Amino acid sequence: MDIRAETDRRAGEIEAVIRSYLPGEEGPQKIVMEAMNYSVLAGGKRLRPMLMQETYRMFGGRSEVIGPFMAAIEMIHTYSLVHDDLPAMDNDEYRRGKKTTHAVYGEALGILAGDALLNYAYETALLAFEIEPQNTGIVKALRILAKKAGIYGMVGGQAVDITSEPAKDLTREKLDFVYRLKTGALLESAMMIGAVLAGATVGEQKIMEETAGAIGLAFQIQDDILDLTGTTEDLGKPAGSDEKNHKATYVTFEGLEKAKADVARISEQAIAHMDTLVVRNEFLTELLRYLISRAS
Amino acid sequence: MDIRAETDRRAGEIEAVIRSYLPGEEGPQKIVMEAMNYSVLAGGKRLRPMLMQETYRMFGGRSEVIGPFMAAIEMIHTYSLVHDDLPAMDNDEYRRGKKTTHAVYGEALGILAGDALLNYAYETALLAFEIEPQNTGIVKALRILAKKAGIYGMVGGQAVDITSEPAKDLTREKLDFVYRLKTGALLESAMMIGAVLAGATVGEQKIMEETAGAIGLAFQIQDDILDLTGTTEDLGKPAGSDEKNHKATYVTFEGLEKAKADVARISEQAIAHMDTLVVRNEFLTELLRYLISRAS
Repeated sequence: MDIRAETDRRAGEIEAVIRSYLPGEEGPQKIVMEAMNYSVLAGGKRLRPMLMQETYRMFGGRSEVIGPFMAAIEMIHTYSLVHDDLPAMDNDEYRRGKKTTHAVYGEALGILAGDALLNYAYETALLAFEIEPQNTGIVKALRILAKKAGIYGMVGGQAVDITSEPAKDLTREKLDFVYRLKTGALLESAMMIGAVLAGATVGEQKIMEETAGAIGLAFQIQDDILDLTGTTEDLGKPAGSDEKNHKATYVTFEGLEKAKADVARISEQAIAHMDTLVVRNEFLTELLRYLISRAS
Repeated sequence: MDIRAETDRRAGEIEAVIRSYLPGEEGPQKIVMEAMNYSVLAGGKRLRPMLMQETYRMFGGRSEVIGPFMAAIEMIHTYSLVHDDLPAMDNDEYRRGKKTTHAVYGEALGILAGDALLNYAYETALLAFEIEPQNTGIVKALRILAKKAGIYGMVGGQAVDITSEPAKDLTREKLDFVYRLKTGALLESAMMIGAVLAGATVGEQKIMEETAGAIGLAFQIQDDILDLTGTTEDLGKPAGSDEKNHKATYVTFEGLEKAKADVARISEQAIAHMDTLVVRNEFLTELLRYLISRAS
């Protein structure tokens, strides 16, 4: 399997699913819908919905009920980027080579489009009840999504991240917290929701949560490594930005060699953990390896 | 009944319910929880949860299942105020005589606390499934909340409002749209959710939606009148701000006398509409009259 080509192909399919759940651009409030759709369609690997869908398939899920949740998690991920890019936050004018939402639509609509996407994520996820009214996993999936996206998840991680600059405030303990919540929590929800909606047991859900958490951590450490060792061209964003911003990272605390070894160790352990399940999804295993392979 | 004293007393009870659903202030992300709680507890008439609870009671609702939704709608109302007050939006440093959230915690945390409240509103509303798992109205209530808070409701109204300044852009048609959605939609959801959770029929839900929409409109027109005729002391905010900001209002289009007559007419029609129901809630009727009485 050419994992890179296969991942790209599936990302295209997932984008079509997401697109089918985006709002129409009509009515006096059309401008905010345009800003939402611009934000979601500005690119991205569609990693969260992909992990969700593959986990769902691994546990035998075969219906369209996963679609609203795939769109919802991408909307939540997107809103977090739109708000992170605002002048009061990271103040980024470009992301993945495209103008950020507030750079195109202005700051007020940047805030509002983010709010709109977060709210629309729930409006969308609730459509799952229409597709499979008898699926008792939907309520649990909604609760997982809300918890992992909120103050005990992603928003909690962001809060610590933005209040811990300059670098001297960022202790190793806080760094772990930010890594676990800011990126890890939403990845965990992706894989847990896939498992829950397919009817996996609580034990199986737990293994997927732990796998996702570990992969999220490996992914973040690899990001720190690449920021130091990659070129701006490779990364699609300025290399060396952490050093320039005096930002403490995993590499600052552990050193480059240890960080590289940890990425390999953590991700292999995560995959081994998932392999203790009786069900298998070869593509998912390959995908997790591919995600962290850029670092080695 | 001394409606003013009774409304204040019930607002106090409602605040206790809301408080019971606010997050604890602990963990490394404590600061965002503090900013959320500061925002929600900074005052307010608790009008939306009050209308929800009284509608729920009117249709015979007697359980605690309404509590999570009362807290959720107040969180959504609060997040919208927190974001509206941001420098990129209305840039207000004070609200009801208290410093706004971003004025206390900084702009980044103002954005994040608003996001956190919106997300936590759904996390909270989902708790209703634990209280009354068999209540099939909960899913419908969630869908009403999400729709009325989002781009087809409050956020849609805000989008038109912020993109229609200066006044020349605000046509009468757009003004109606903003009034109907920016404030009206959330009031509609309050009364609809109360009805749905108590098991009201679709026809009854519709009457409550229409009543709330009309009361919301009367309430907004009255606000425009008071901005012109009230004193800063009466209002608790600067009088004459619409004129100062060259903001077109209902009074600009219709004149002061017509506006006053319309408030009385629209609100009495709304109450008469609600009175066509076989169920009654005397306090709710008095409350709706009281809400718009300040304008006459």
